[in-house]
Amino acid sequence: MEKGISQAVIRRMPRYYRYLGELLDGGVERISSNELSARMRVTASQIRQDLNNFGGFGQQGYGYNVKYLYDEIGKILGINQQHNIIVIGAGNLGQALANYMKFEKRGFVIIGLFDVDPALEGVTIRGIQVRMMDELQAFVKAQRVDIAALTIPKERADETANELVKLGIHAIWNFAHLDLELPEYVVVENVHLSDSLMQLSYNIANQRKFKEQKDKK
Amino acid sequence: MEKGISQAVIRRMPRYYRYLGELLDGGVERISSNELSARMRVTASQIRQDLNNFGGFGQQGYGYNVKYLYDEIGKILGINQQHNIIVIGAGNLGQALANYMKFEKRGFVIIGLFDVDPALEGVTIRGIQVRMMDELQAFVKAQRVDIAALTIPKERADETANELVKLGIHAIWNFAHLDLELPEYVVVENVHLSDSLMQLSYNIANQRKFKEQKDKK
Repeated sequence: MEKGISQAVIRRMPRYYRYLGELLDGGVERISSNELSARMRVTASQIRQDLNNFGGFGQQGYGYNVKYLYDEIGKILGINQQHNIIVIGAGNLGQALANYMKFEKRGFVIIGLFDVDPALEGVTIRGIQVRMMDELQAFVKAQRVDIAALTIPKERADETANELVKLGIHAIWNFAHLDLELPEYVVVENVHLSDSLMQLSYNIANQRKFKEQKDKK
Repeated sequence: MEKGISQAVIRRMPRYYRYLGELLDGGVERISSNELSARMRVTASQIRQDLNNFGGFGQQGYGYNVKYLYDEIGKILGINQQHNIIVIGAGNLGQALANYMKFEKRGFVIIGLFDVDPALEGVTIRGIQVRMMDELQAFVKAQRVDIAALTIPKERADETANELVKLGIHAIWNFAHLDLELPEYVVVENVHLSDSLMQLSYNIANQRKFKEQKDKK
């Protein structure tokens, strides 16, 4: 059933999950697609279409059961199980990730931090010891690692990512500023902060233009 | 001419810019859309279509002048001018951003760091002093601030973002894990790390399924 669901739909699912979580926290038990639509600023038909990709969940005219929908989307997103993460690169960004406890609430647990800089050996971030890269192989053999976060300079990223894949890690959360060249079966999620800044800068440059166009209408 | 260009197109432009920069660094002066396509794993027709949104830049059968195209895309993205950034929230993520020097190469310069935690007062990150939030107004009056990066907990994010807008900052780079409620003229670029992790986790769960489908073909 989940064959051929576009990444655009998948990209919206965490947002649904987040909003439903907030509704749950607020004690809301049931919500119509129209109310959810108003809150999320997405059309009600978009919501129905997105959820229909996974088989629906709503009854016509009766709305969605918030808890049920929340749990089901959690299952779809695979966050009903724990994911063990190692962070490769214990610089500022790697340390920021290790310090960010909220990932754990969703079952994403950082179990290791690795770096090549001997000055970082033995440093501990929120109880997680920084290990040297030559300890990586033994570590991965001893523990299940589901995801490797890459927070290293782009010059070393491709080589390191391919090493990780050889060690059996098939999911990379890539913060290095390049597109990794990896076998097709490896799942990669990119966070390109510079690209994001450039998109922001484009929108700043066009903000006035858009505003002027709007005022004309 | 740039009216109505979709954010999907805009999202691809930084990637073109990045690849063209690498070609330039490698001494490549001219490239056909086919070569660029093979390198970027985007169809040649997609590249032509994307660039046609801005008026083209290529001559049929003659390819693109790399330096010219790089500069033009830079202008489109608005990175031919300096953007001054302040970071609100000098925790790990805020410090990571302040330490990340590569943004400066693109003209994104972090000129201030702010926090509410008195323990951080006077701390200096790469020469940038952490200031307390009550100094923000005077700072923004004294210096041009183009972008505010929000790296604070989501509980305070909406209120803080609205304060920033009142101070005249109309572009927010939002790392807080919620969708900000701001006037329509404010430009917001979200980096939702948890959403990104959930998308990764979905793709991990479906990785095997996709692989099986592929093997059947």
